[in-house]
Amino acid sequence: MAQTGDAEIPKTCKAGVVVNEGPDFKLAVEDVPVPEPGPNDVLIKLNATGICYSDIHYMLNDLPIPKMSVFGVRSPGHEGAGVVVKVGSNVTNWKVGDRAGIKPAYDACFDCELCWSGKETYCPQSPQIGLQFPGSYQQYVLSPARYTQRIPEGVDDFVAGPIMCSGSTIYSSIKESGLKPGDWAVFPGAGGGVGHMGVQLARAMGMRVVGVDGGDDKKELCMKLGCEAFVDFTKVTDVAAEVVKICDGKGAHGIFITATSASAYKTAPMMARIGGKVMCIGLPPPGDGFGEANPLLFIGKNLHMIGTKVGSLLDTQKALEFAARGLLKPIYEVFPLAKMPDAVAKLQAGKVAGRLVVDFNS
Amino acid sequence: MAQTGDAEIPKTCKAGVVVNEGPDFKLAVEDVPVPEPGPNDVLIKLNATGICYSDIHYMLNDLPIPKMSVFGVRSPGHEGAGVVVKVGSNVTNWKVGDRAGIKPAYDACFDCELCWSGKETYCPQSPQIGLQFPGSYQQYVLSPARYTQRIPEGVDDFVAGPIMCSGSTIYSSIKESGLKPGDWAVFPGAGGGVGHMGVQLARAMGMRVVGVDGGDDKKELCMKLGCEAFVDFTKVTDVAAEVVKICDGKGAHGIFITATSASAYKTAPMMARIGGKVMCIGLPPPGDGFGEANPLLFIGKNLHMIGTKVGSLLDTQKALEFAARGLLKPIYEVFPLAKMPDAVAKLQAGKVAGRLVVDFNS
Amino acid sequence: MAQTGDAEIPKTCKAGVVVNEGPDFKLAVEDVPVPEPGPNDVLIKLNATGICYSDIHYMLNDLPIPKMSVFGVRSPGHEGAGVVVKVGSNVTNWKVGDRAGIKPAYDACFDCELCWSGKETYCPQSPQIGLQFPGSYQQYVLSPARYTQRIPEGVDDFVAGPIMCSGSTIYSSIKESGLKPGDWAVFPGAGGGVGHMGVQLARAMGMRVVGVDGGDDKKELCMKLGCEAFVDFTKVTDVAAEVVKICDGKGAHGIFITATSASAYKTAPMMARIGGKVMCIGLPPPGDGFGEANPLLFIGKNLHMIGTKVGSLLDTQKALEFAARGLLKPIYEVFPLAKMPDAVAKLQAGKVAGRLVVDFNS
Amino acid sequence: MAQTGDAEIPKTCKAGVVVNEGPDFKLAVEDVPVPEPGPNDVLIKLNATGICYSDIHYMLNDLPIPKMSVFGVRSPGHEGAGVVVKVGSNVTNWKVGDRAGIKPAYDACFDCELCWSGKETYCPQSPQIGLQFPGSYQQYVLSPARYTQRIPEGVDDFVAGPIMCSGSTIYSSIKESGLKPGDWAVFPGAGGGVGHMGVQLARAMGMRVVGVDGGDDKKELCMKLGCEAFVDFTKVTDVAAEVVKICDGKGAHGIFITATSASAYKTAPMMARIGGKVMCIGLPPPGDGFGEANPLLFIGKNLHMIGTKVGSLLDTQKALEFAARGLLKPIYEVFPLAKMPDAVAKLQAGKVAGRLVVDFNS
Repeated sequence: MAQTGDAEIPKTCKAGVVVNEGPDFKLAVEDVPVPEPGPNDVLIKLNATGICYSDIHYMLNDLPIPKMSVFGVRSPGHEGAGVVVKVGSNVTNWKVGDRAGIKPAYDACFDCELCWSGKETYCPQSPQIGLQFPGSYQQYVLSPARYTQRIPEGVDDFVAGPIMCSGSTIYSSIKESGLKPGDWAVFPGAGGGVGHMGVQLARAMGMRVVGVDGGDDKKELCMKLGCEAFVDFTKVTDVAAEVVKICDGKGAHGIFITATSASAYKTAPMMARIGGKVMCIGLPPPGDGFGEANPLLFIGKNLHMIGTKVGSLLDTQKALEFAARGLLKPIYEVFPLAKMPDAVAKLQAGKVAGRLVVDFNS
Repeated sequence: MAQTGDAEIPKTCKAGVVVNEGPDFKLAVEDVPVPEPGPNDVLIKLNATGICYSDIHYMLNDLPIPKMSVFGVRSPGHEGAGVVVKVGSNVTNWKVGDRAGIKPAYDACFDCELCWSGKETYCPQSPQIGLQFPGSYQQYVLSPARYTQRIPEGVDDFVAGPIMCSGSTIYSSIKESGLKPGDWAVFPGAGGGVGHMGVQLARAMGMRVVGVDGGDDKKELCMKLGCEAFVDFTKVTDVAAEVVKICDGKGAHGIFITATSASAYKTAPMMARIGGKVMCIGLPPPGDGFGEANPLLFIGKNLHMIGTKVGSLLDTQKALEFAARGLLKPIYEVFPLAKMPDAVAKLQAGKVAGRLVVDFNS
Repeated sequence: MAQTGDAEIPKTCKAGVVVNEGPDFKLAVEDVPVPEPGPNDVLIKLNATGICYSDIHYMLNDLPIPKMSVFGVRSPGHEGAGVVVKVGSNVTNWKVGDRAGIKPAYDACFDCELCWSGKETYCPQSPQIGLQFPGSYQQYVLSPARYTQRIPEGVDDFVAGPIMCSGSTIYSSIKESGLKPGDWAVFPGAGGGVGHMGVQLARAMGMRVVGVDGGDDKKELCMKLGCEAFVDFTKVTDVAAEVVKICDGKGAHGIFITATSASAYKTAPMMARIGGKVMCIGLPPPGDGFGEANPLLFIGKNLHMIGTKVGSLLDTQKALEFAARGLLKPIYEVFPLAKMPDAVAKLQAGKVAGRLVVDFNS
Repeated sequence: MAQTGDAEIPKTCKAGVVVNEGPDFKLAVEDVPVPEPGPNDVLIKLNATGICYSDIHYMLNDLPIPKMSVFGVRSPGHEGAGVVVKVGSNVTNWKVGDRAGIKPAYDACFDCELCWSGKETYCPQSPQIGLQFPGSYQQYVLSPARYTQRIPEGVDDFVAGPIMCSGSTIYSSIKESGLKPGDWAVFPGAGGGVGHMGVQLARAMGMRVVGVDGGDDKKELCMKLGCEAFVDFTKVTDVAAEVVKICDGKGAHGIFITATSASAYKTAPMMARIGGKVMCIGLPPPGDGFGEANPLLFIGKNLHMIGTKVGSLLDTQKALEFAARGLLKPIYEVFPLAKMPDAVAKLQAGKVAGRLVVDFNS
């Protein structure tokens, strides 16, 4: 039987919902029914949700994927943090009151080699929350118990939210790069939402970090977060050459492309030393490739180009542990629930420093 | 003092030398002086040399690199096998009579991180034999003792020659791919000079091998060498889809591009399963890239694209050990010394099955 | 609602049950109730179960662990193979008719770092089937859907049974050793139940295999299964020296101690080459250590000593895939159900060649 | 021809030499001839040499190895730092004025798999300086050019000396452990000569470090160097239990035994979490093993016990790079040349905090 404090759970809750899904969508805050957990689910009351550009893609429906409405979903969102308020009848490892997080993958099959290898976010049967299932723009949200993220002590919900997606993504990329303490790690897009977390994590892992971004504000931020050097692409003509010079004249061990421009992809291989890893993270605008990749360059430099997406349960936990130790502090701006549409509009409009987080309790 | 049986060493020897270096070059067999080893060198009397298309590139001078004549070199060649006939005054670990091989890198600095990590073929100070130093088309040839390859018992010189370059190259790529026994390894260009050695090595390492090439002869060869399946690109419309189907419907763990066409590079990523490795080995014609590589594909499939070149001393030794156990048997055609120009002409003219080897003793 | 063909499921079934648990136990074949699957379970009708010495330990209760009866369990057994006949109400990834296997761990928490890393058999919350839950000596047995092993086409149930435990165990050890194709793998106990599977797997993975065991029968078996050499400890005085000589005079890359004698543990480090792996698998009699291990030896030889237990879901699947390809064929003797007590008695009495399997259908 | 500033090189130099080699040896400072470099050697004028307990072993001749005098050697020492003053006729990669270091291995064969894999300190043909060749107690000392250590800018000679041996040793062990940033690293002997460098390196690599040693001075030192916690074995009864508690209640990922007591070896496995690495570094007194090692413990905990010795050329360079960045600062006490015998006597007498270094220029 479901464990709960049912008295406290309302019948309806607030949710950011998409109206007029498509190029001219609007976000509205409405009352929606609080869902009932299935036998293997937990019901989470969220305190915070991050706002991610993927949410906007889903509401715009500008990617070659089905609409949210095909799945009967109105609320996007995949960076939620809150507390379990009810658990399904078969759930034994979660209890009411446990802190819990929502991340992009809603679940996975746990019955395939990818799932058994800590690569469950690549499981072909893994659905997306906020697209195929109601997302973290809805205050009371369901999550399969086996795929709900525990939030450790010392990490508040505003911090936990952005780590569910961006923090986990960059942690996963750094891990897969195999870079070692003492190696040079370069972050094109270092001052952005993903990049600024990468700088902190790489630093906490003992790497030597170079930020690449544009403008003095970005420079100041990057140096404060632990970069040894910063290359400003608005001021330096040959960014790759400058990076190579900084990195012992040999180039970087790893280049983490958190920028979303095609030019970042074109430049990154030139920044790599022999045997270097070029890590693909940010998505350039649809249709914009990274140019004529060149086998000769790959062969002559023993280049590795590797793509990764959002991290696994374990990756996310590890990223949260760095946060709990004070070594990963996402920069964010808080919006009250009523201003959720403004937050979405601001992100859609363009440059946001750090991440946007909505506070469900204000 | 140099150890030698000086009486037996002639003053001159035969060598294939380039005449009229450039687009209209000819190869001639001439008498050239036998060189004298420096204190750290060995002098090798070759019994066999392979003929590699790189030799033709050097004689044509159609790559963006200096001419052989800039270095005072007239003989290309980097696949030599023979016996040490004289050792320099400081050489202690080689003696007259030891079997010895010549491979593409003449030497390396052994004073940098790459050299200390078994990546000495990427050392920026590593010169090429047959370009910067007289190559294995010359019967008596010098080699630094520290970078001369030992040839184990059970590997004859006609076999050893092609392993010095092609065999070592594909061994190195398979090693760096990290593929495991039981994994699916696909070889576009499986019936070619490099590919047919890859098929044998992958098989000996317990992998499941799929050959991709064109024509029934190639198919017959590939199946005989240990492929579980063969995809004929002259008959199958969607080669990648066919490979995916064969590989459990999921795609291959590794795709080793030994073909030298741009289309092989374009198709390979589609053959990969999630987390798959696309290994760049063959060089497409200059200027012909592998198309608009796509970050979304890399990220969504956790794709790894990795370039490698010829193997290290250790890699080459390991490839030779597989040959000594009868598990790697390059296919080759033997030409007598006087017909060396014909061998070169044949390779330049086009399709050669397996490798061409010149016998210095006939 | 549970999917089933209920009409076909009897109320009771046959089971081997322990009588008089303790030093003088007996095994009896009795009728026991067929259990009802919980919402996340499957009910499996077994066709075969292996008999493992651990079962005898449990029935003797000669290990420092609780009695089976403490958990209300009467049937040991953890090497079962059969078919799903009923699935719990929440189970979506199994259906009636799927082939399914039972292995030593009944389940794991799937909520800890070990479980998320493919190390779930080390999960502190993982209970043992045949000890804490009724085991595979009972024809109809429950298994949590998420931890039931799929049996691939081409592997019959008599083969699958022993792979669930012994095959999975040795696969896991070989994997963790990191040995590469071409490396020397030595198996003390090569002719035993675990060892003879290790020989086959190592061979299929391209390793060079040396068997160590006693007697001509063992030698014949080992050579037939793919050993390159065999060292008979009943005939050779210095077994380690002989192994070193065979392995290029340098020693083995890996020594897999599948024997259960303390002397095997004492000798193994002497067989290793520099950087070699000594893999602990077999359990010597309680209280019998492996002698005064010596830090100087570990340091001077860069020795690695590593213990592993039974393999994970993924390891077991991989071992089954080798079996499906005909590369792993456990040797076994079949007993009809009524003779299960004889099988247990035979194993308890001593030397058994290969594994013992009970056929529930005869 | 040898490059030199011969005018500046004296005919004789000062050296600490052993008198009455054996249990009652004395160290004397004498004039000895300055050696002449062979064609592949460099001659180094040392500014500093560390004093290591191995030197005392060699002079006492209390290990089962030949006497120094068998090799005609009178000066021990293998932690030297200075400057090249002459280079042999074939040496091209060193020039007069380059900073250079001496470490325990004098050379290696560079013609075997170990040497080609960055494991050259395990090469069976690698001789020891200060035992088989005159060591760093002699101010002008020879070193093969290919195995001389470069000292980077920013590392003074008093710092470089101890890194040649102890720093390189612990760097190598940490690298081979495979520990990751965020993992728990425990150092029994944390306040000692090797341990205090390990604490700093592990910290610089992003690990969480626990020191184990005895006394408040050790505690103060360890906490200053970056330990998160310290366990005082003079105060805590169950040291292993305390370590496990600190490390999330699960135990440490790696235990680096820099202590030289048998008890450290007995306790370390109890400190490990599942899959943990027990790294053997310190040598207990001869004949004193680490007790009855227990296969059941290895298997049940997936324990890895790994021995490593002094680091390679590359390892030592990496350790020096951490020093150049200010992240590794050995603690040392300086003795003028004339007091070298006092330094040796002090080390022989017992407890020394940090390392002892002799200044050849005072």
